[in-house]
Amino acid sequence: MYRKHFIYDSRKVYIGVNRFLHGVNMTVKVAINGYGTIGKRVADAVTAQDDMEIVGVVKRRPTFEAKDAVRNGFKFYAAGDEFIGAFDAEGIKTEGTLNDLLDIADIVMDCTPKKAGYMDLYKQKGVKGIWQGGEKHELTGLSFNSFSNYEDAIGADFARVVSCNTTGLCRTLWPLDNKWGIDNVLGVMIRRGADPWDSKKGPINAIEPVLKVPSHHGPDVMTVMKGLNIQTTAVAVPSTLMHLHSVIVKLKQNIPTEDVIDLWDKTSRIIFVEGKEGIKSTAQIMEQAKDSGRKRGDLFEIAVWKDGVHVVGDTLYYYQAIHQESDVIPENIDCIRAMCNVETDKWVSIEKTNKALNVR
Amino acid sequence: MYRKHFIYDSRKVYIGVNRFLHGVNMTVKVAINGYGTIGKRVADAVTAQDDMEIVGVVKRRPTFEAKDAVRNGFKFYAAGDEFIGAFDAEGIKTEGTLNDLLDIADIVMDCTPKKAGYMDLYKQKGVKGIWQGGEKHELTGLSFNSFSNYEDAIGADFARVVSCNTTGLCRTLWPLDNKWGIDNVLGVMIRRGADPWDSKKGPINAIEPVLKVPSHHGPDVMTVMKGLNIQTTAVAVPSTLMHLHSVIVKLKQNIPTEDVIDLWDKTSRIIFVEGKEGIKSTAQIMEQAKDSGRKRGDLFEIAVWKDGVHVVGDTLYYYQAIHQESDVIPENIDCIRAMCNVETDKWVSIEKTNKALNVR
Amino acid sequence: MYRKHFIYDSRKVYIGVNRFLHGVNMTVKVAINGYGTIGKRVADAVTAQDDMEIVGVVKRRPTFEAKDAVRNGFKFYAAGDEFIGAFDAEGIKTEGTLNDLLDIADIVMDCTPKKAGYMDLYKQKGVKGIWQGGEKHELTGLSFNSFSNYEDAIGADFARVVSCNTTGLCRTLWPLDNKWGIDNVLGVMIRRGADPWDSKKGPINAIEPVLKVPSHHGPDVMTVMKGLNIQTTAVAVPSTLMHLHSVIVKLKQNIPTEDVIDLWDKTSRIIFVEGKEGIKSTAQIMEQAKDSGRKRGDLFEIAVWKDGVHVVGDTLYYYQAIHQESDVIPENIDCIRAMCNVETDKWVSIEKTNKALNVR
Amino acid sequence: MYRKHFIYDSRKVYIGVNRFLHGVNMTVKVAINGYGTIGKRVADAVTAQDDMEIVGVVKRRPTFEAKDAVRNGFKFYAAGDEFIGAFDAEGIKTEGTLNDLLDIADIVMDCTPKKAGYMDLYKQKGVKGIWQGGEKHELTGLSFNSFSNYEDAIGADFARVVSCNTTGLCRTLWPLDNKWGIDNVLGVMIRRGADPWDSKKGPINAIEPVLKVPSHHGPDVMTVMKGLNIQTTAVAVPSTLMHLHSVIVKLKQNIPTEDVIDLWDKTSRIIFVEGKEGIKSTAQIMEQAKDSGRKRGDLFEIAVWKDGVHVVGDTLYYYQAIHQESDVIPENIDCIRAMCNVETDKWVSIEKTNKALNVR
Repeated sequence: MYRKHFIYDSRKVYIGVNRFLHGVNMTVKVAINGYGTIGKRVADAVTAQDDMEIVGVVKRRPTFEAKDAVRNGFKFYAAGDEFIGAFDAEGIKTEGTLNDLLDIADIVMDCTPKKAGYMDLYKQKGVKGIWQGGEKHELTGLSFNSFSNYEDAIGADFARVVSCNTTGLCRTLWPLDNKWGIDNVLGVMIRRGADPWDSKKGPINAIEPVLKVPSHHGPDVMTVMKGLNIQTTAVAVPSTLMHLHSVIVKLKQNIPTEDVIDLWDKTSRIIFVEGKEGIKSTAQIMEQAKDSGRKRGDLFEIAVWKDGVHVVGDTLYYYQAIHQESDVIPENIDCIRAMCNVETDKWVSIEKTNKALNVR
Repeated sequence: MYRKHFIYDSRKVYIGVNRFLHGVNMTVKVAINGYGTIGKRVADAVTAQDDMEIVGVVKRRPTFEAKDAVRNGFKFYAAGDEFIGAFDAEGIKTEGTLNDLLDIADIVMDCTPKKAGYMDLYKQKGVKGIWQGGEKHELTGLSFNSFSNYEDAIGADFARVVSCNTTGLCRTLWPLDNKWGIDNVLGVMIRRGADPWDSKKGPINAIEPVLKVPSHHGPDVMTVMKGLNIQTTAVAVPSTLMHLHSVIVKLKQNIPTEDVIDLWDKTSRIIFVEGKEGIKSTAQIMEQAKDSGRKRGDLFEIAVWKDGVHVVGDTLYYYQAIHQESDVIPENIDCIRAMCNVETDKWVSIEKTNKALNVR
Repeated sequence: MYRKHFIYDSRKVYIGVNRFLHGVNMTVKVAINGYGTIGKRVADAVTAQDDMEIVGVVKRRPTFEAKDAVRNGFKFYAAGDEFIGAFDAEGIKTEGTLNDLLDIADIVMDCTPKKAGYMDLYKQKGVKGIWQGGEKHELTGLSFNSFSNYEDAIGADFARVVSCNTTGLCRTLWPLDNKWGIDNVLGVMIRRGADPWDSKKGPINAIEPVLKVPSHHGPDVMTVMKGLNIQTTAVAVPSTLMHLHSVIVKLKQNIPTEDVIDLWDKTSRIIFVEGKEGIKSTAQIMEQAKDSGRKRGDLFEIAVWKDGVHVVGDTLYYYQAIHQESDVIPENIDCIRAMCNVETDKWVSIEKTNKALNVR
Repeated sequence: MYRKHFIYDSRKVYIGVNRFLHGVNMTVKVAINGYGTIGKRVADAVTAQDDMEIVGVVKRRPTFEAKDAVRNGFKFYAAGDEFIGAFDAEGIKTEGTLNDLLDIADIVMDCTPKKAGYMDLYKQKGVKGIWQGGEKHELTGLSFNSFSNYEDAIGADFARVVSCNTTGLCRTLWPLDNKWGIDNVLGVMIRRGADPWDSKKGPINAIEPVLKVPSHHGPDVMTVMKGLNIQTTAVAVPSTLMHLHSVIVKLKQNIPTEDVIDLWDKTSRIIFVEGKEGIKSTAQIMEQAKDSGRKRGDLFEIAVWKDGVHVVGDTLYYYQAIHQESDVIPENIDCIRAMCNVETDKWVSIEKTNKALNVR
């Protein structure tokens, strides 16, 4: 690995100057630590790019997902020596451990459960790292959303891609704020109680509010859209499919409903759905996503109900649905590009990611 | 029946002057048309009062609820001649039909499915009528909520008790508006998909927004709290237990959180629940209601999460949960009293109802 | 407490001979350890009897249920010294600890989470104990069901009332076996995923089989109906209301469907429901139970669909629904009577319990 | 269309003799009437074969699925003249109506709601037809399952592919019966309440038994596995993902558990899942299916829990899960081949279908 041969004061400088600016067109070597809901999707998305590749994936337990990783052709590493025996017992061949993988990776996507605490190891191994939205902003001090603050991540060592809900809010709010200015936002997040694969968690039949008011979602948006005035509340409900946001935005100008629709229509990573076409709920959105043929029926885009967008005076009301398992995947790819200095123009990266992932 | 013997220009005058002002202390004769979710509860609640009585209940089909009505000692009437056979077949004795019942009733509680269209019959029979929140305001031109506009219903012939959600909003908003003034309200209603007894309706696993934005709930509140500036949106979720409201109120004054709590604490028909006591969701609220020993585990009060009430500047955030099956029951009783001139002071009626129903 | 003053070789003898046989008609002093789903119901049920009384209830945490216990007038004890502070902080007055309570109790109803491990303490304190079906048979070596083996518990020190599902199976199977003989039974238990008050547990949207086949339910029935040939399988589903059993019984005789219905009709603790009366699912059963006015809308009886009972040759098919929160309550009362030698004739105890609890 | 030019006594003879036996290697022209859950999947599956092609799809309403059909490149026809306007209004180009499509099709896959009543039209147009399991056996007098009775459908004009549940039962039962003989079968079907895209239907929180006992599923299996002794009962539950069967089979021989596993392992269209790999419920089965990359995350195979297969004496217990939306797709393809005389050897067709659809 190059990092073994050349010593630089700053890895940022190294990667930026030597590797890419000097025309050595290497692909970024990406490790996946945690091959679950997000990890497996990032692995597939990285594989779909031409400027990065998966050098290995890490898991702790020999579940069906571990076997699936092997079946998909990823090099498989155990989280530590102590886990190798269990993989052997299930016939899952390991290439080594996380430690070994970090030796050959440029960047690690940390998709482990929150507070898993691997940062010190990454630092010690001189590998960059990206965490997911389950972690707090403070872990890295740098939160990331492609539209909102791509530039902040250029060359950075550690970043956190904001959560699915925050990403969803940024996707629709950033264009509004960028074009017309936002006075304030109120968002009520109706959250799915558990992911589709999770049969342990409830609630089966209850609605559960987040009693900390305003909820953490507003401040989380502000880690990437600094200065935005946003308040949020949240409830969990017995559904597995998607989060749904009821958003009310006070704009700095009186804008007709059609102009808002037109703006979002021109913005990528947002799709419109319509009640009058039979898309009445998150169930039909997911059905349409499955029909589109994308792997796992994922929906990387934020779905906005076109016939649910209404401006009254300076106040915009809309509903959006968030595929919690996949909407952050494009942002993870962009974040790799920014951090590894592969691309400094956010729109170029966004366009490249969209094309590779067939994102609208 | 008195109405058969004396003719007056105005029934209002009649009831007001003759029957009650002249000291004839008769109990109001109440008919229940539609013995379902609301009808059966109103029947029990009327029975618990000392100034009104059930003279009969009406149903169309010989279901378990029909048998239960008979078991509970109510006189049972078929909705029409054509239904009597079916009741006979199931051994349910009928005293006659709705027509017969209306002859002996002062007022009919119309708890039939919406748009059942009985008003003309009631007019023809000279009987007063109260509808439920499923009907539109226009049906009667008079909507009712005890706190908000009791006075408007005094002596009226026809009224509509507003829906469970609207009642819930009025319960907490009216005291705020009355004491400090409300600038504007934003409410997001997270609605239960179906009632607990309803195994036909979904969604099983989806979140469904009401695409008409703002939703009808705001205007519905304004039928009783005229002039209130309130906007609402709504979604349906796969739960049967309660509706939950996330409410944001801009007050006309900066009020400390404790003062809001104190005000509601002094207001009847509101109870506080607390996350720290283990009441995390609508499930535990209903459990507590069941433990309280009230019939059917009903919760006539609106449940507000005490540790979910937060004022930031002039903006009050709170969550409240609505027992859709029962919260309007006290208002139905008050409405009967107002319309039949039994009591002209709203607080006296509210207090009387609360006492009879053991409402906080 | 009498146990402090007289020493006997066997407490069974003591209680049997001295207290009850010698005509000292004392009420049994019952402690409740664990005031949750079962504990609170047993407390109410004991209170409804004339030959036993609650001397105190124990809980660990100051939840709404603890406050409810106090509100209901029960003397409240902390599970240990270490818990008293938390109760004090919430204004819940404690009379002492479990230790103190055991000093004044004849029998303790252990309604703590399974494997809580209090038996040694009870032995040390010389108090009898009853556990619930979450525990294994081996804990006490004596499992209990009123119909099946009341006699075995007479004078016993420790027993386990079998689980809600096992109790449900015994209620309908014992009469069949007693009257006509059962060749074998196959039961498929469709279990509710979590209790109504439990918003943590799932599944939200999955069906989960018990992979241990046959499931433990069959052997559990055999702890009280010894020699019965019964095999069971089980799945968990996203509902909170009731368990539902699809049962297939091969009888030792060809019996007409009507005779089976007639037998169960004459057996207490079973009720019939009918699809043609609108009771299509567990939802309507629970609605009918709520309408009946019993506290918490409980259903102590096993609900059998009358129009779902079918005999084909010697094979009987039926569906029954189990109110998991309450069906074992009558059996707990009977078990107290048997163990404390209050009543040695099972039918007398059953009849007495039924009457006090208004059980069919 | 050929049928316009040559008249034969029997279309069976025509297709068999002329078109295929005489070496004219034409692809079968397939029309899809009803582009919903099954229709869209059959359309994709036909497209994946080299001996058949979709000549057009028919729908009534301009939903998102209609737009998706067009996007997927299918020629789109309105169900009748009266529907064309609505499609025009939504910008969906129609090639004509069902009538026009039938003129150019060899066979129509009727995936309309049950009892839509198109058979007379198909007869009149001289086109073969395949219905789905929602229809009764009597409609066509010929029910179809690939393993069980492929031969019966060779050259037939009209057939019904049995339902998802019946197909699932045949997949695992036929090999058992074929190899060792089955004495009798008992199956309890735990059915998902509604499909994932269906947000209207419940139950949200109930378990609903099919009171007709034994249920129709047993007789339905017997339409294709004649002479099998099978009884079934069924309940509906609040899940959208899959049906789950608890099956108990009395075999004619005592067979070790491993032999049963080995037999199914060698049988196509069955996969094993394992609780110890984390596949505890239908949720994880569907997750694994999504990970496999098949369109829509479909699972054409029947999933049997390997660690849930147990033989006790001559009695085999197992659980299987059925992807109700897709398991019948391979059978639909085989049925086309049989009816159109494309292939008379069932195993050749099964193998060909499996390969084209990447079925295990």
